[in-house]
Amino acid sequence: MILLFTDFGLAGPYVGQMKAVLHREAGAVPVLDLMADVPAFDARAGAYLLAAYAADFPAGSVFLCVVDPGVGGDRQALMLQADGRWFVGPDNGLLAVVARRARQVEAWRITWQPEHLSASFHGRDLFAPLAARLARGEPPPGTTVTPDRLVGHDWPDDLAAIVYVDSFGNAMTGLRAERLTDASRLVVRGQRLERARTFSAVAPGDAFWYENANGLAEIAVNQGRADQRLGLAVGDLVEIEPVDSR
Amino acid sequence: MILLFTDFGLAGPYVGQMKAVLHREAGAVPVLDLMADVPAFDARAGAYLLAAYAADFPAGSVFLCVVDPGVGGDRQALMLQADGRWFVGPDNGLLAVVARRARQVEAWRITWQPEHLSASFHGRDLFAPLAARLARGEPPPGTTVTPDRLVGHDWPDDLAAIVYVDSFGNAMTGLRAERLTDASRLVVRGQRLERARTFSAVAPGDAFWYENANGLAEIAVNQGRADQRLGLAVGDLVEIEPVDSR
Amino acid sequence: MILLFTDFGLAGPYVGQMKAVLHREAGAVPVLDLMADVPAFDARAGAYLLAAYAADFPAGSVFLCVVDPGVGGDRQALMLQADGRWFVGPDNGLLAVVARRARQVEAWRITWQPEHLSASFHGRDLFAPLAARLARGEPPPGTTVTPDRLVGHDWPDDLAAIVYVDSFGNAMTGLRAERLTDASRLVVRGQRLERARTFSAVAPGDAFWYENANGLAEIAVNQGRADQRLGLAVGDLVEIEPVDSR
Repeated sequence: MILLFTDFGLAGPYVGQMKAVLHREAGAVPVLDLMADVPAFDARAGAYLLAAYAADFPAGSVFLCVVDPGVGGDRQALMLQADGRWFVGPDNGLLAVVARRARQVEAWRITWQPEHLSASFHGRDLFAPLAARLARGEPPPGTTVTPDRLVGHDWPDDLAAIVYVDSFGNAMTGLRAERLTDASRLVVRGQRLERARTFSAVAPGDAFWYENANGLAEIAVNQGRADQRLGLAVGDLVEIEPVDSR
Repeated sequence: MILLFTDFGLAGPYVGQMKAVLHREAGAVPVLDLMADVPAFDARAGAYLLAAYAADFPAGSVFLCVVDPGVGGDRQALMLQADGRWFVGPDNGLLAVVARRARQVEAWRITWQPEHLSASFHGRDLFAPLAARLARGEPPPGTTVTPDRLVGHDWPDDLAAIVYVDSFGNAMTGLRAERLTDASRLVVRGQRLERARTFSAVAPGDAFWYENANGLAEIAVNQGRADQRLGLAVGDLVEIEPVDSR
Repeated sequence: MILLFTDFGLAGPYVGQMKAVLHREAGAVPVLDLMADVPAFDARAGAYLLAAYAADFPAGSVFLCVVDPGVGGDRQALMLQADGRWFVGPDNGLLAVVARRARQVEAWRITWQPEHLSASFHGRDLFAPLAARLARGEPPPGTTVTPDRLVGHDWPDDLAAIVYVDSFGNAMTGLRAERLTDASRLVVRGQRLERARTFSAVAPGDAFWYENANGLAEIAVNQGRADQRLGLAVGDLVEIEPVDSR
């Protein structure tokens, strides 16, 4: 299965154009939209989301990852095999957290070039054909590189910031809840939030944080929009209380 | 075929995660997005939409329905067979109008539990696997319940309120047009609207109501946005003139 | 392959309902969302987008095109074979630019009618079944018409106006970049823009125009939103400097 993880938006022609390439070059492989609304140009937010959301999928899955503000410049293209899953994308940090957390990881810089490479749409011209190759079982067309040379290799284990606001107004952080405790409070924009098990554990309208279904600490309001209620946006910093001593 | 009917939004990872489960557990069955933008948390609006939009589909279709503000609390899970179509979702009224209008209906409370059940994403962990079971032809894993014990069993036949605003700004009501007459007027936010056959039957910019392609009374403006022009939103009440005496 | 090109939005039930028809009537044929957010009611903008974005696809592809403000009125339905690709849609100009630019083109007015034709949703009731027929290899059920009798046959080769704003805020024009030169400047809303090769060729925050990955002249800001920065919207006129003398 090929999973699409981009900041393209589902509207517009871009996702469809990538799918057309995948169909042409790996027609029998199912293709699924994982996320098309990673925060635009934000490879760092995308990196923490990808690490959380890729973990559900079985070995052999191929993630086609495009958050690529440096397209057409000198950023490199990358392939990763991490705990049996494949990842293709720009070397701008987007794949760095997956690489960092993997028990087993191998990385390749891509040397292959398509016949026609546009200056602005490597998702269609470069990354989609590469994902199709992997899905067909072909080896990475590049040279191995040690993970400590990838952009983002020095990013923190967890990111104490908001990385995504979903359609309900819930604000995901880049923090794994398992690294926090039941007594941990999150402070964001001056507001101090207690942990709860889930939405229905607090009164309608109350704000809290909880471990979301993919393990991230997420800020929410029961039957309300946390983004509007608390004034939250992607990039807002989050503090942890009491300070984690680990 | 499995049809997705949720308030998740197409953006974000949630629809993709449900599709990944369906692919894993019922790979050969086609999956189609029917609606991902049911008004958020609004099981009642969703119920009248679902009844109107499910009617197009053949017997054997499986509707995976998730509008679930009570997730993680004590609301029950439900399966329905109604006129040969299958429905899976929370027992919060979302399936109630389908059940009410069906000529033949059977309902089950779900007793099956997945190995891993998150507190906040039963769409992925509970309802998607249940839909996959039905699509594979397995029987409902639960105990039958009479429809008059379902949440929403006492909701009205038709809902005199706006239940959805589409991307063009057209405002669907929960009223079936066949219950109204050619002379019926709808009054909403103090504005009195006549019936027309369709958009091109009125002058550009004129507001009217008409029977939409799925039988609902829908408020529209020819080549304009009814929501902005008339100040409409989901939940606005609608009055019928002259008062229906049936 | 059947490609969907509409102004329906991906949200809402409409795209799903069309796909259900395609699945029922041409189940084995892959269906792909090309664009669901063509500017609403704007057949002219759609025509220039379609011509640019259809060119990627191989002969035999079927484009199901619905931007149809005149639905239910007296506008005709159309089929086109242009350079081996098939197009189905309303005769309101939406297919006119494809027809104009094709090296080889044939057109049919549709005489076939479905058993049930709603007044407002010909995408589901008329155009989707027609696209399925073409995808199954059946001939156009209509009478040939010469392209110079189609609505829009007299529209210009290129449209000097903004035809689409994408999710990043980039503003596509209806101008093919190959008709311009490296020295051409585009003037829009009083602002004069130079050509660049791509985003990373200018400083972050700078506005420019470039040849996008489908050959259109597109107005952009490196790592910013051109629509907000320059105050752009679909329909804004664009001037070319120096005036093209060809």
